Amino acid sequence: MALSQQRQEKTQQNFFLENELTLQYAVAEEVMQLFAPSKSLISIEAKMGVQTDTLVDDFLSAINTNSDIDFNALVETFSDSQVPINPANFDNYLDYLANNVINHSIHTSSPRFIGHMTSALPCFVRPIAKLMTAMNQNVVKIETAKAFSPYERQALAMMHRLIYNFSDEFYTEHIQNSQSTLGILVSGGTAANIIALWCARNKSLGAKNSFAGVEKEGLAAALDYYGYQGAVIIGSELMHYSFDKAADLLGIGTDGLIKIPTNGNNQIDLPALHQAVADCQSKNLHIIAIVGVAGTTDSGNIDSLLDIADIAQAANVHFHVDAAWGGPLIFSEQHRDKLVGIERADSVTIDGHKQLYLPMGIGMVFMREPYLASSIEKNASYTMRKGSFDLGKRALEGSRAGMALFLHAGLHLIGLKGYEFLIDTGIEKTQYMAAQITTMPEFELLSQPDINLLLYRYIPESFRELAVKKQLTETDNQQINRFNERLQKSQRQAGRTFISRTTKTISCLEKEISVTALRAVIANPLTTKDDIDAVLNDQIQIALDLLISDSLEATPSLA
Amino acid sequence: MALSQQRQEKTQQNFFLENELTLQYAVAEEVMQLFAPSKSLISIEAKMGVQTDTLVDDFLSAINTNSDIDFNALVETFSDSQVPINPANFDNYLDYLANNVINHSIHTSSPRFIGHMTSALPCFVRPIAKLMTAMNQNVVKIETAKAFSPYERQALAMMHRLIYNFSDEFYTEHIQNSQSTLGILVSGGTAANIIALWCARNKSLGAKNSFAGVEKEGLAAALDYYGYQGAVIIGSELMHYSFDKAADLLGIGTDGLIKIPTNGNNQIDLPALHQAVADCQSKNLHIIAIVGVAGTTDSGNIDSLLDIADIAQAANVHFHVDAAWGGPLIFSEQHRDKLVGIERADSVTIDGHKQLYLPMGIGMVFMREPYLASSIEKNASYTMRKGSFDLGKRALEGSRAGMALFLHAGLHLIGLKGYEFLIDTGIEKTQYMAAQITTMPEFELLSQPDINLLLYRYIPESFRELAVKKQLTETDNQQINRFNERLQKSQRQAGRTFISRTTKTISCLEKEISVTALRAVIANPLTTKDDIDAVLNDQIQIALDLLISDSLEATPSLA
Repeated sequence: MALSQQRQEKTQQNFFLENELTLQYAVAEEVMQLFAPSKSLISIEAKMGVQTDTLVDDFLSAINTNSDIDFNALVETFSDSQVPINPANFDNYLDYLANNVINHSIHTSSPRFIGHMTSALPCFVRPIAKLMTAMNQNVVKIETAKAFSPYERQALAMMHRLIYNFSDEFYTEHIQNSQSTLGILVSGGTAANIIALWCARNKSLGAKNSFAGVEKEGLAAALDYYGYQGAVIIGSELMHYSFDKAADLLGIGTDGLIKIPTNGNNQIDLPALHQAVADCQSKNLHIIAIVGVAGTTDSGNIDSLLDIADIAQAANVHFHVDAAWGGPLIFSEQHRDKLVGIERADSVTIDGHKQLYLPMGIGMVFMREPYLASSIEKNASYTMRKGSFDLGKRALEGSRAGMALFLHAGLHLIGLKGYEFLIDTGIEKTQYMAAQITTMPEFELLSQPDINLLLYRYIPESFRELAVKKQLTETDNQQINRFNERLQKSQRQAGRTFISRTTKTISCLEKEISVTALRAVIANPLTTKDDIDAVLNDQIQIALDLLISDSLEATPSLA
Repeated sequence: MALSQQRQEKTQQNFFLENELTLQYAVAEEVMQLFAPSKSLISIEAKMGVQTDTLVDDFLSAINTNSDIDFNALVETFSDSQVPINPANFDNYLDYLANNVINHSIHTSSPRFIGHMTSALPCFVRPIAKLMTAMNQNVVKIETAKAFSPYERQALAMMHRLIYNFSDEFYTEHIQNSQSTLGILVSGGTAANIIALWCARNKSLGAKNSFAGVEKEGLAAALDYYGYQGAVIIGSELMHYSFDKAADLLGIGTDGLIKIPTNGNNQIDLPALHQAVADCQSKNLHIIAIVGVAGTTDSGNIDSLLDIADIAQAANVHFHVDAAWGGPLIFSEQHRDKLVGIERADSVTIDGHKQLYLPMGIGMVFMREPYLASSIEKNASYTMRKGSFDLGKRALEGSRAGMALFLHAGLHLIGLKGYEFLIDTGIEKTQYMAAQITTMPEFELLSQPDINLLLYRYIPESFRELAVKKQLTETDNQQINRFNERLQKSQRQAGRTFISRTTKTISCLEKEISVTALRAVIANPLTTKDDIDAVLNDQIQIALDLLISDSLEATPSLA
């Protein structure tokens, strides 16, 4: 090799090496900039804040519910699986986000998005989200969340008091007692329900004599020791799917989730529940818990909690109430009675991200008995030492954020009367919608709403007379089902308004059949009566368009 | 009653009624203001934003780690359990927050808070937190999170590819295939570990012939059908406490969590693991999974994943790697080798809120086999219909926020090279700290760091000679333990710097004993070598103060 060539290669090598180092240095500098605290208003972060605020304002002021992009086309834009090599520029990434993600997200705050339990939120949650993220507390232990631990306990105690209303002495004793657990904050209602049943299982199959308890020895050994043939959880057929997850996770098996039929008002059938409890007892099956539902996901109905409490008490079984949706009725003087009996529950689930109008990630489970959660306590040498104040000791999760900030802020910035107003007006608007549906020949109301969920369906003109006379056949209903499914999908695709769909069991010529139902959830404070009318009129228009296109397809082409 | 008195009472009644209505109206108005979308800069929300930004800036620029308020005094301030009646004013609430909560929270971003796995975060997470909260997507189903569903799948696929590095064809096939699950985003590493073992349990005890599977029939029936005496999970004694939770939850029992001793480097002892597997097999115990740890919580050590993979493969057992902490080493060319074998894991846990420098609430579990998670699939009529794209179908949680926004943003705004820089410099600074400790007579390094966690302890002067000669007795060690515990507590209380503590097993005159260890976690990019020196010097000063106060107490008072 000629010397000159060698030298040239060497230079080139050096060049690449230097280039590589320069690149590395550039990356280091860019990354360090991201971590440098922002003190001045002209900082990177302040600029990012202004840019995202613009996107936020646009997003929140949208009236339509979503873009009409085809979902398969949208999916295509997320097909690259390589992590980018170098840090992207924030402006470019924000542009990408705006065009590909934000533009095609759901305007859950739109007053015409009234089909799911996701709604507009009060404006304070946005600055508070930033504050919480900036503080980056980890409430698993006080060493990473000093004030947040008693602060979270306080917010949970306030909710506990609304439900159970024990004495001042009770709360003085337990609110900040590290041995007591009045409630556990968790990622959502599903985890809250799982924790409640976990506690119920562990307490009812606990240590006794030579047996170290289900927690240590496992479920098979527990059933064996206590002499049971199996274990079950009993609730209505309208229980949330999180109970299927719980029964599976806890080793009971979903077959052990006994689903009791409901009455015409979607409430658990009490004689059938009675019978099921007796059957389990006679079959020597251990009943871990009886579940009452306070606000079914489908239609918002509330079980007769007082009667279930009696049945659970007589059977000496843990009584859990899933009030993920309906719990906040406790704030309303007018509607609180619908929850009567909840104060006798051993555990209660409430979701902050539903009717407390807080962001996702705030599930709560409350315990009547402050020592119940000790049945799931775990400790570790580097944290959550026995006797400590660390909140992670009695929880499903480990590290978690200071989400209590939203809950505590909600309870203070909205207050008892504010939540009462939100509950009352939601139910009032739902009654308005039900009344409108009743007067419109295009629709059939499938049941009177208990609270702020509503099931109805569209009846194509050719079926209306039979529908009014209650003479629809099963085949008619099947055709109507298909039409309602198409209607809901077309409405969703168009993106001007939104209603969800589910199935509901109805009587059809003395037979129980399942029909497709349109499902409204009226939880957005911004939704006015005009919006409700607009949603219904949009559905009528879409239905007409579908019928016209059907008849065009059926007619031989003129071309 | 005189007429005039009657009239007067009536007037008073009216007055109260009117007053009540006025109050109700005022509450309604205040609440509705909170929900009104903010379009103009002078809106309520913009003002809230400015106020919270000021608090955020102050909080983030703090150098000390926490206030020195007495914890019991702090707890006292959170003793009211009544929900306030009327909505509070935001300014007042923010003042309250600042004085009672923010002032006494932990400055986890302080460069001198190097004792836990909680660190400074890149600035983009703060505007993005606000954006995510504003968008309020619920990724349980596409109807409440249209673009977010494929967007989350993409971010998870990128992480999957870093771990498993399958072919382009593999990712093209699975990245947006609703039947495949490359990863699940969940609230944290604990839930991620639980999901992994849940999948392992359900798959290995699945439906067969007349048996409908553990998911349906439960664990007792499954063990019975398959003819096992019991079920176990095997891993090192340094497994995270989430495995205790998993063993309990899944019905196995914590006694079924077999903890294998570790070697001098805190890694699972391979011959002992081999033996345990053989023992279980001979006892007819079903091994649900073997767990490898990639970054122990105590000291960051990584098991020999390749060897564990061989053992698991030979036994035909699910191999799970808990890489909650160590997973992101995959980004580093220099340190990636420490994880070799992870690509053979059936499932892997990684925490976004740890070494991906993202907020709490981003746990991830990845699956080698894209259909593994079908073993935990659940459906419901109102959502998550079979065959749908809904992400909630195969998950522990139900409703959850669009946390993928942080993950996707992190992968793009920090990038492969940026994460590599963060990993490399963290380890480099840890080596610096270890070297400093070695040269300082006050301290003893308890083991060489594998990555960026470090265990050491303070040796009071009277013990130093014996310590150097390795002649400390068990009683000496007990005294040193007590001193280190006091040192750590005093340091935490003073709040200038922070180091956590744990226990470590060491050899003491041919006996294994447990000693109190100081634990450093060097994960904050803002921590400089000067900060490390400052933390060590602070400890030396606190130790001297403690020794002086001890000797004063021991000396008879001169007064």
